[in-house]
Amino acid sequence: MSLLVYAPIAHCVWEPGGWLAKQGMLDFAGGTVVHINAGIAGLVAAFMLGRRVGFGEEPLRPANIGYTMIGASLLWVGWMGFNGGSAGAADGRAGLAMLVTQLGAASAALAWMIAEWIVRRAPTLLGLCSGAVAGLVAITPASGFVDAQAAVIIGAAAGVGCYWGATGLKRLLGADDSLDVFGVHGVGGVIGALLTGVFADAAIGGAPGSLAVQALGVVCTLAYSGIASALILWLVDALVGLRVTRQQEAQGLDVSQHGEHVE
Amino acid sequence: MSLLVYAPIAHCVWEPGGWLAKQGMLDFAGGTVVHINAGIAGLVAAFMLGRRVGFGEEPLRPANIGYTMIGASLLWVGWMGFNGGSAGAADGRAGLAMLVTQLGAASAALAWMIAEWIVRRAPTLLGLCSGAVAGLVAITPASGFVDAQAAVIIGAAAGVGCYWGATGLKRLLGADDSLDVFGVHGVGGVIGALLTGVFADAAIGGAPGSLAVQALGVVCTLAYSGIASALILWLVDALVGLRVTRQQEAQGLDVSQHGEHVE
Amino acid sequence: MSLLVYAPIAHCVWEPGGWLAKQGMLDFAGGTVVHINAGIAGLVAAFMLGRRVGFGEEPLRPANIGYTMIGASLLWVGWMGFNGGSAGAADGRAGLAMLVTQLGAASAALAWMIAEWIVRRAPTLLGLCSGAVAGLVAITPASGFVDAQAAVIIGAAAGVGCYWGATGLKRLLGADDSLDVFGVHGVGGVIGALLTGVFADAAIGGAPGSLAVQALGVVCTLAYSGIASALILWLVDALVGLRVTRQQEAQGLDVSQHGEHVE
Repeated sequence: MSLLVYAPIAHCVWEPGGWLAKQGMLDFAGGTVVHINAGIAGLVAAFMLGRRVGFGEEPLRPANIGYTMIGASLLWVGWMGFNGGSAGAADGRAGLAMLVTQLGAASAALAWMIAEWIVRRAPTLLGLCSGAVAGLVAITPASGFVDAQAAVIIGAAAGVGCYWGATGLKRLLGADDSLDVFGVHGVGGVIGALLTGVFADAAIGGAPGSLAVQALGVVCTLAYSGIASALILWLVDALVGLRVTRQQEAQGLDVSQHGEHVE
Repeated sequence: MSLLVYAPIAHCVWEPGGWLAKQGMLDFAGGTVVHINAGIAGLVAAFMLGRRVGFGEEPLRPANIGYTMIGASLLWVGWMGFNGGSAGAADGRAGLAMLVTQLGAASAALAWMIAEWIVRRAPTLLGLCSGAVAGLVAITPASGFVDAQAAVIIGAAAGVGCYWGATGLKRLLGADDSLDVFGVHGVGGVIGALLTGVFADAAIGGAPGSLAVQALGVVCTLAYSGIASALILWLVDALVGLRVTRQQEAQGLDVSQHGEHVE
Repeated sequence: MSLLVYAPIAHCVWEPGGWLAKQGMLDFAGGTVVHINAGIAGLVAAFMLGRRVGFGEEPLRPANIGYTMIGASLLWVGWMGFNGGSAGAADGRAGLAMLVTQLGAASAALAWMIAEWIVRRAPTLLGLCSGAVAGLVAITPASGFVDAQAAVIIGAAAGVGCYWGATGLKRLLGADDSLDVFGVHGVGGVIGALLTGVFADAAIGGAPGSLAVQALGVVCTLAYSGIASALILWLVDALVGLRVTRQQEAQGLDVSQHGEHVE
């Protein structure tokens, strides 16, 4: 069913005859198609699922920060293939895409940590990981169109912006988005899509950027994916149900849904 | 000593003048040489070592499912180099080998989970990991000879077949094959070798497959590696002993053999 | 500030007009620039920071050997890009650099384990990981200049030498180098730099090696990086302080400095 959501966006943005592509929308490796899409779908799901038992009453900490670090490290390396591979060849553009991906991630990781340092007096490992992913998300649409300086700026904007997305904006929205999918992938995707319009350099990617067209793409993706996800979730809820019982939730999903003890 | 087992199989299958190679045996990246070989050697070792203390009386759970997941993820990525690299060049055939590797692994992971869902009412993370490895094993001999559709079929067959290998067949054999080396690498290797004979497309790898020749290769590898492994294990047992004492086993091998506490 | 330390060494060794480069100093992928530099800086820092509370009185074990293994595995794979990439092209020299990197790491891992076996009667997982890193460090300067046989010898020398660096030499020095940065990166870097002078084959890298020039490079890097690191650490100590309080140390730095519980 995710094909129902993914395919029309990919068509509009990436096909030569696609509606957004014809207007000059730039999305090198899937910022709208993957990340804004995933971010808004996650937010809609968080609203429709409701909050976890205990949310707001007791601290719901990440289960294992070491695993978070390992996962973020593997993601970072894998992203090189994701963005570099979108060049479709092992050429200079692929190399540049990998360089700006590295710079965007590093810049965002630092920016998130600095923001945390200022706001809560201490940077965290979770912040470093979240910041790196925020930077990877934001540089994704830009990675074949911008230079190294722009990558550092896009990363810094994503680091600070997504930190707000995962704290202030999250409180404002009130949804229990436990993995910060909207805060990191949604907000980071929007920042990346817009700044691609600002920093795209025709000398690199052969295409000039337009902030207005990028904004149009962002709004369309948010609206389309948000509505389509809501419909799909509503259908799944009606057919099989979205949420486990209170008892199963207290027991943990590993045990109640998979019969498996995970340390 | 494993060279004694590995080298003659590699010679027969891969050398231009090798006996099985001359008859048209196909094994792109080492299905017989690595996986059937490892699978039967593991089974022979499980029989000769005997069962762990407590086997069949108390549940002997995997120590840490999180590590299983991390290991399977690293294996999956590394396998791209293993199968893709067997093309001997960074060309289209290497690309196709990587594509079918990805499809075989994904298809087998899903198939194993579905089989688990039907049989024990819940898919597990351990099943997802085992299924992915089963698919990687089965697509290995086929990876330079088959197309995407065949890869999905080979993967599905390996997912279901190896699930049986790690449950029904395992109970039948009675050996305490604690890592399911025979169930996954042995059964998956046999499925992959046979289906390479069915699906090999001369338009891709330049060589037509033959089910009869593949079956001959499977039988020879099982027989040769099984007997050679038994002889080597018998020799090691006679010279230095194969198994720790009951006391050392109860203490754990990390502590008793390595003086090391592993969490 | 690490730029103050790193840049002059890189200039001297790698720039065509650099002082050591002109005399024929060989350092393919950064043995002096990265590892001797890091090793001596770590040792100076260990002296200036002082020992951990409880050092020498109670066993201070690694927090999680599983994470050590995962980290070493990721390092090993990443090092292929580090050494191979230093060829500056996807060519035969890059391939050879990757081959000797693999052989150096494997040889050193085995050598460390054998040394441990002889000295303390049991090889450990921590020793396997440390040995692999020691081999990767030592082969780094040599990786574009030596053949496979030399790689195995360099690795074996690094495995045994760094085992001594992390045990005998460490006790001699008395510093609480908790991650064995000097024992592995310092000693391994020195061994690699010197043996590059012995084994460099003009037929491979186009440059003959000279033990005397390599030794000069080692001494200069140790002296320069040692003094510069001491000055920087002294400055940091004066401005913001180098060490947490006894209380914060007892509480753990994750909690006291980052407000984060890490399992």
